[in-house]
Amino acid sequence: MRETIASEEIRLDFQRAARIGLPEAIYCTGKSPAQIDAILAMAADKGRGLLLTRLDPAKRAQLRPEHGAAIDYCPVSGTGFFGPLPPEQGGAAVAIIAAGTSDVPVAREAQRVLRHAGRASNFIADVGVAGLWRLTERLEEIRAHAVVIVVAGMDAALASVVGGLVPGIVVCVPTSVGYGVAEGGHTALNAMLASCAPGITVCNIDNGYGAACAAIRALDSIEMQRRA
Amino acid sequence: MRETIASEEIRLDFQRAARIGLPEAIYCTGKSPAQIDAILAMAADKGRGLLLTRLDPAKRAQLRPEHGAAIDYCPVSGTGFFGPLPPEQGGAAVAIIAAGTSDVPVAREAQRVLRHAGRASNFIADVGVAGLWRLTERLEEIRAHAVVIVVAGMDAALASVVGGLVPGIVVCVPTSVGYGVAEGGHTALNAMLASCAPGITVCNIDNGYGAACAAIRALDSIEMQRRA
Amino acid sequence: MRETIASEEIRLDFQRAARIGLPEAIYCTGKSPAQIDAILAMAADKGRGLLLTRLDPAKRAQLRPEHGAAIDYCPVSGTGFFGPLPPEQGGAAVAIIAAGTSDVPVAREAQRVLRHAGRASNFIADVGVAGLWRLTERLEEIRAHAVVIVVAGMDAALASVVGGLVPGIVVCVPTSVGYGVAEGGHTALNAMLASCAPGITVCNIDNGYGAACAAIRALDSIEMQRRA
Amino acid sequence: MRETIASEEIRLDFQRAARIGLPEAIYCTGKSPAQIDAILAMAADKGRGLLLTRLDPAKRAQLRPEHGAAIDYCPVSGTGFFGPLPPEQGGAAVAIIAAGTSDVPVAREAQRVLRHAGRASNFIADVGVAGLWRLTERLEEIRAHAVVIVVAGMDAALASVVGGLVPGIVVCVPTSVGYGVAEGGHTALNAMLASCAPGITVCNIDNGYGAACAAIRALDSIEMQRRA
Amino acid sequence: MRETIASEEIRLDFQRAARIGLPEAIYCTGKSPAQIDAILAMAADKGRGLLLTRLDPAKRAQLRPEHGAAIDYCPVSGTGFFGPLPPEQGGAAVAIIAAGTSDVPVAREAQRVLRHAGRASNFIADVGVAGLWRLTERLEEIRAHAVVIVVAGMDAALASVVGGLVPGIVVCVPTSVGYGVAEGGHTALNAMLASCAPGITVCNIDNGYGAACAAIRALDSIEMQRRA
Amino acid sequence: MRETIASEEIRLDFQRAARIGLPEAIYCTGKSPAQIDAILAMAADKGRGLLLTRLDPAKRAQLRPEHGAAIDYCPVSGTGFFGPLPPEQGGAAVAIIAAGTSDVPVAREAQRVLRHAGRASNFIADVGVAGLWRLTERLEEIRAHAVVIVVAGMDAALASVVGGLVPGIVVCVPTSVGYGVAEGGHTALNAMLASCAPGITVCNIDNGYGAACAAIRALDSIEMQRRA
Amino acid sequence: MRETIASEEIRLDFQRAARIGLPEAIYCTGKSPAQIDAILAMAADKGRGLLLTRLDPAKRAQLRPEHGAAIDYCPVSGTGFFGPLPPEQGGAAVAIIAAGTSDVPVAREAQRVLRHAGRASNFIADVGVAGLWRLTERLEEIRAHAVVIVVAGMDAALASVVGGLVPGIVVCVPTSVGYGVAEGGHTALNAMLASCAPGITVCNIDNGYGAACAAIRALDSIEMQRRA
Amino acid sequence: MRETIASEEIRLDFQRAARIGLPEAIYCTGKSPAQIDAILAMAADKGRGLLLTRLDPAKRAQLRPEHGAAIDYCPVSGTGFFGPLPPEQGGAAVAIIAAGTSDVPVAREAQRVLRHAGRASNFIADVGVAGLWRLTERLEEIRAHAVVIVVAGMDAALASVVGGLVPGIVVCVPTSVGYGVAEGGHTALNAMLASCAPGITVCNIDNGYGAACAAIRALDSIEMQRRA
Repeated sequence: MRETIASEEIRLDFQRAARIGLPEAIYCTGKSPAQIDAILAMAADKGRGLLLTRLDPAKRAQLRPEHGAAIDYCPVSGTGFFGPLPPEQGGAAVAIIAAGTSDVPVAREAQRVLRHAGRASNFIADVGVAGLWRLTERLEEIRAHAVVIVVAGMDAALASVVGGLVPGIVVCVPTSVGYGVAEGGHTALNAMLASCAPGITVCNIDNGYGAACAAIRALDSIEMQRRA
Repeated sequence: MRETIASEEIRLDFQRAARIGLPEAIYCTGKSPAQIDAILAMAADKGRGLLLTRLDPAKRAQLRPEHGAAIDYCPVSGTGFFGPLPPEQGGAAVAIIAAGTSDVPVAREAQRVLRHAGRASNFIADVGVAGLWRLTERLEEIRAHAVVIVVAGMDAALASVVGGLVPGIVVCVPTSVGYGVAEGGHTALNAMLASCAPGITVCNIDNGYGAACAAIRALDSIEMQRRA
Repeated sequence: MRETIASEEIRLDFQRAARIGLPEAIYCTGKSPAQIDAILAMAADKGRGLLLTRLDPAKRAQLRPEHGAAIDYCPVSGTGFFGPLPPEQGGAAVAIIAAGTSDVPVAREAQRVLRHAGRASNFIADVGVAGLWRLTERLEEIRAHAVVIVVAGMDAALASVVGGLVPGIVVCVPTSVGYGVAEGGHTALNAMLASCAPGITVCNIDNGYGAACAAIRALDSIEMQRRA
Repeated sequence: MRETIASEEIRLDFQRAARIGLPEAIYCTGKSPAQIDAILAMAADKGRGLLLTRLDPAKRAQLRPEHGAAIDYCPVSGTGFFGPLPPEQGGAAVAIIAAGTSDVPVAREAQRVLRHAGRASNFIADVGVAGLWRLTERLEEIRAHAVVIVVAGMDAALASVVGGLVPGIVVCVPTSVGYGVAEGGHTALNAMLASCAPGITVCNIDNGYGAACAAIRALDSIEMQRRA
Repeated sequence: MRETIASEEIRLDFQRAARIGLPEAIYCTGKSPAQIDAILAMAADKGRGLLLTRLDPAKRAQLRPEHGAAIDYCPVSGTGFFGPLPPEQGGAAVAIIAAGTSDVPVAREAQRVLRHAGRASNFIADVGVAGLWRLTERLEEIRAHAVVIVVAGMDAALASVVGGLVPGIVVCVPTSVGYGVAEGGHTALNAMLASCAPGITVCNIDNGYGAACAAIRALDSIEMQRRA
Repeated sequence: MRETIASEEIRLDFQRAARIGLPEAIYCTGKSPAQIDAILAMAADKGRGLLLTRLDPAKRAQLRPEHGAAIDYCPVSGTGFFGPLPPEQGGAAVAIIAAGTSDVPVAREAQRVLRHAGRASNFIADVGVAGLWRLTERLEEIRAHAVVIVVAGMDAALASVVGGLVPGIVVCVPTSVGYGVAEGGHTALNAMLASCAPGITVCNIDNGYGAACAAIRALDSIEMQRRA
Repeated sequence: MRETIASEEIRLDFQRAARIGLPEAIYCTGKSPAQIDAILAMAADKGRGLLLTRLDPAKRAQLRPEHGAAIDYCPVSGTGFFGPLPPEQGGAAVAIIAAGTSDVPVAREAQRVLRHAGRASNFIADVGVAGLWRLTERLEEIRAHAVVIVVAGMDAALASVVGGLVPGIVVCVPTSVGYGVAEGGHTALNAMLASCAPGITVCNIDNGYGAACAAIRALDSIEMQRRA
Repeated sequence: MRETIASEEIRLDFQRAARIGLPEAIYCTGKSPAQIDAILAMAADKGRGLLLTRLDPAKRAQLRPEHGAAIDYCPVSGTGFFGPLPPEQGGAAVAIIAAGTSDVPVAREAQRVLRHAGRASNFIADVGVAGLWRLTERLEEIRAHAVVIVVAGMDAALASVVGGLVPGIVVCVPTSVGYGVAEGGHTALNAMLASCAPGITVCNIDNGYGAACAAIRALDSIEMQRRA
């Protein structure tokens, strides 16, 4: 039996996009299928699109069939697009770099959030510094982007190396990949914060969504200044 | 008696500015006066300017007199400008917001680093959310900047409130101000990383220098795209 | 096969209500169904009502059928009322404010504990500070309560904003909602303890029960002083 | 040489008392004497009284002589009253209980903050549970107060024992007294948060100021309800 | 398919009882059923009895049938007696006190370990300090034992209260019962270590086995001195 | 100028010795010289002896001259005997073993507390396991004691080795000696708690006083049982 | 349905063996079966052998049948050999010592990684210091190896004892075996890092792979110097 | 007045060199000048040389004049050579690499310990990865050593980059250089342990002594195998 969702439990912030350029996203962990269905119904009522994050396949299967079917879903990143999707704009101004294969889900989350906002991005994975040549052979390509998102777990040394070689905006996302002292991503987080490379900034562990939003803020700023 | 500094101990990265747009700064904590003097002499030899951070007045007084006298020093932030300083460019594209009076030293460090790079900034202090009107009455002014640096200790709630109201690039710096669970700044750091406001990014505790470098990266990107 | 519960394992503190105005509640995590059944049988014997907390549906289903059926159960909060329930008294002197939809279970626990003690409360959810207007448009309504319970996870910035705007008793409950540095609720807890808003106090993570008990203590004190 | 305080660094929240019943206090740690002098001058200009906390004797001696002399100073708690002080109202509705002699500074801070707000309080020290008779022989006296502030370090067991015996509002303040695992007060804090006694709430470590503000909120609520 | 256990993986310390009076026990967590079977076979070969701890019912069911059936098993504590069991000696010199019903499994582990060594004990549960009368009414009975084992989670205040009232050897065992800051038992552990009651000592979290061994060491010392 | 000590701040627990066999000791850290003088005067009034711990030479020098002079002081351990001292009883039933020279202050504190209670002890230092022969050549001597106190910092491996070789009561005291991960003694504490040697128990970091009290409890129990 | 693996997600570092003498290994935790299959196909294409670590039986069963069947799999350590395996060279220069039976999986991982590199090793388990004779009776045998790998959880005292008795290279691996303060292996890790035995070095928790690689580096260095 | 050192407090392990090839060193932190003098006198008596570590200049000045004068002292690393020093053997088989100027003291400690054992080493400083060219231009030189000691604080990314490029034995030493999350060196430590580069091992924070001892063990092994 499903619980009833009191209308007092949900208040969507549809003004957010107008206020800060970032639409509200629905973080699905800790929300019941009934709560998510109530949110989607509210969005459908208003003709709004919604981005869903951390939606695992099992929970998606428990949504109302018409909701589940309407979601453009990516199982690697657990993201879903519900309702209207803006067209992709211009060239890719954002590079997303993942240190290892295990960091791909977080990197894909960033890519999907950018796509939901109509921004293209280039994706470069498995370039961890244990094999430095994998990074240096693509360095020129990476340097051409206005924003570089670095996704890495464990020692997160990739962030420092990129930060020392790339001139643009560098946003780092630690991942919870790893075991022992790396477990949960706190070592990667702290290494990025303590980086010897100047001017790189950091998001919460596994927060591909946040890094993409930071990139959108940057692209909006660039756009605004270009027009000014 | 002073220790002798072996030349093998110091290798300045003068190419850094050309590579990533950020000149090397000398972090003075943990360096002996003799080491700092050796670095300054090397810079003077090459006719380079240098930024010094975390230089406390006592250590400054132990430098060689000709070095101490040549430094444009700010005691609040512990920063020093050595050698040539670029002129200030255009209008202030960066706002620096400090939650409380105790956060001023870190905020001033950011301002001085920007100044050393020739960037103007606006400084707004004592606008913590316990008296929300102090922030909201200046909101329109703040929203006009391409980059907003938020400096806050304790609960760092200012970061989330600003992040929910301001559309531009938001770079947060937690400070070590406070006692008990706030001691050392880890609560402020974690609250900023866990912020419910999307797309804000975070630097290490007390790292006004890093936030300024992130702002310079952003301004450089904007400039580059404007030209493109 | 069920284990046998030795009578030496359970001693209910039925005098607690007389002593401090708060009846004993049964925290079900870590208790076996057999232990809970033994406790309920003891309460039924003495004609006492009991409040059960953290009773998940699976464990409820393992209780003796006559016990399971006799419980007025709320699946969102995992609370159950067993036996006699006092009538609801007068108007709602307590407001319960939850930052996000994911904080609802903890907020509902507080509401149910108040209800079990015969106290009405008003429930306001999804008013996190990332969309500040959601809070400010209901501020006057909130300020009218003698006690305000703030339930929030992640950065818990809602606690500081409410504490700076509301004059009454403010009791804060951090929740374990979130990931990365927010995981487990320690960041929310510490941010509430380090809040720049004066005079707000804090309960253990996810402890809606404790916040409700604090509210009952406050209402009892008010009642006692009114009579004095 | 003193630094100059830019007027942009200080914005006093004089409306706070009208908004939430608690006047702004000046937390002196991390503020320079020049900053504190600027704040006091601003208050004197407006004819306002100010409470200073964490003002150590050395810093007090560095204030401008007319400021230093005008402060009613308590060296045990490091608190100072500057300017007009309200008269003490009615009987003592607050009991302050300190577990050991080493907890007295924090307990005295609470008492002084209450006094600055015109509230009397009773002070009971050295009643830690290792000698339980010291507490139980004064239990009836303690139970008569509307609010009980418990100040304890180390294991903070006093909070649980008081919470199980006293019906009123119980606000707990952990102290940083102790060594080893007790160092810094985190064990006391956590033990209070995890207390088996229901409905007690907790402030930051060493935060006598916060506990007093919580008591003032409670007394204001009681007063407001009495009038209603 | 079962893995093969190389004989090089197991070396039982059968001399331990002769050396320190405590026979080796088999801690079953992290050992495969095949490894436990190999150990039991080795003990059976030598005609030795063995104590098994942390043996959950599922793992027990995976042992060879002749081993599973030969174990005198207690599901509450997860302990098993394999092979010969010494007779119980004299009166109960050890009291085991558990704060709450949820602490019973750890307390029963201690009781079973004592029984395996032929020592009787008295068991007193649910005497947490939130209802202090439950403890004080049994105080004289408790004071009569040479060794008192206190088992408590959460704030572990029971340890300090007992330590202040009981003259004998007091061995404390924190339990992992609880949530939020209590989760995992570290708060209980630290509160016991930081206790204001002098001369109480502490075991690892949930280590009923260790407390029982400490009691056996004490009883052996007493016996040795009595004979001397 | 000295602060005045209100009589309400100090309540000595002179009944403690009768209740649990351990007299109250005065822990001097965090107490002002004025507070300590007030306590000593109270003890002198009642003709009681007192043990002082953690009294550093500087604070001792600030006591009233007649108090300072009357204290039998040990600078290594920071302990003082004030007033009457009981005679030393019988042979040494306690061995105190310190791993390294740096652990001596804590070990001496234990020895002095035992002496203040009239108990002799044997002192064996610098027997850390990095040079195992130093321990094994004295093993027979150590095994003869009813109680063995092990004092060790860093990895605290001595506790496990002693616990595996010695049959009596083993009380462990971690010390804060060391740097890096050893700093503050938490590694030593945790290694002792997690020891593979059964039945050893642990005190707070640097708590030589607590270990001595545990030994006194054990000797009292032995004495009581011998008489029974 | 399986996800598709974009070729951009995987870049194997086949040059690693030539560069540092250690071939790339595939750490399977956090990689999907589809990702692992893609990696194996790439290796098969190039005729390369691969080492797989942390491959649990369930994930192995989800690989393509031709891949699953081609793997030489060890269920205890979760390691697999795929493709060509070098012959074992000469005598065993590495000893692997495990403190307890529960440490065997990590120790076996080290042994298998050495085997995959063609290095023989000797395996000695269950020699924890609680029964010191088990170690000392094999000491001469252990001392004959060029490299000794010590695998231990809990207090990890074995590392210090071995480090004090053995002259060769000592590489330590803490394990996550244990509960309470030992949970997750951080106590073992810190005890090894803080060891009083000089010159032992440490790997991440449960990192048998890393210890084996360190041994291979050492054997390669020895070989290189022998040839020089 | 100096305390008297009981002979029972000091037992030097002069056999250590014969046993494991590493002579005992005197770690001076936490030892009083009187204790150090007693140790030096004992060594002088036996005609033994001693290495002193962590001897700060102030403590050195408090030693007996004949001892202070006899010490070959390095103020940067705080090391001292007392008594006979072996001649330097052969070429430098060890490279010591320090990431920044602030890491030099720890790196020099390693170099001095090697020198005290008669081993030459090459010293390369200020090659942190933020300026990667500084490292790569010296890579061939570094790769030629049998052992590479990497000394780095903050994010310690240098360890991973070196570990991915250098084939020999790599021993890492994290330093406590840095602030915020880097403070105390735990981030550097964890990043080294979690490194994506295989087979590098780690010492305690700031433990240049330990890294040098590990190098000596390696050189001894190489020597032993060369002779075999």
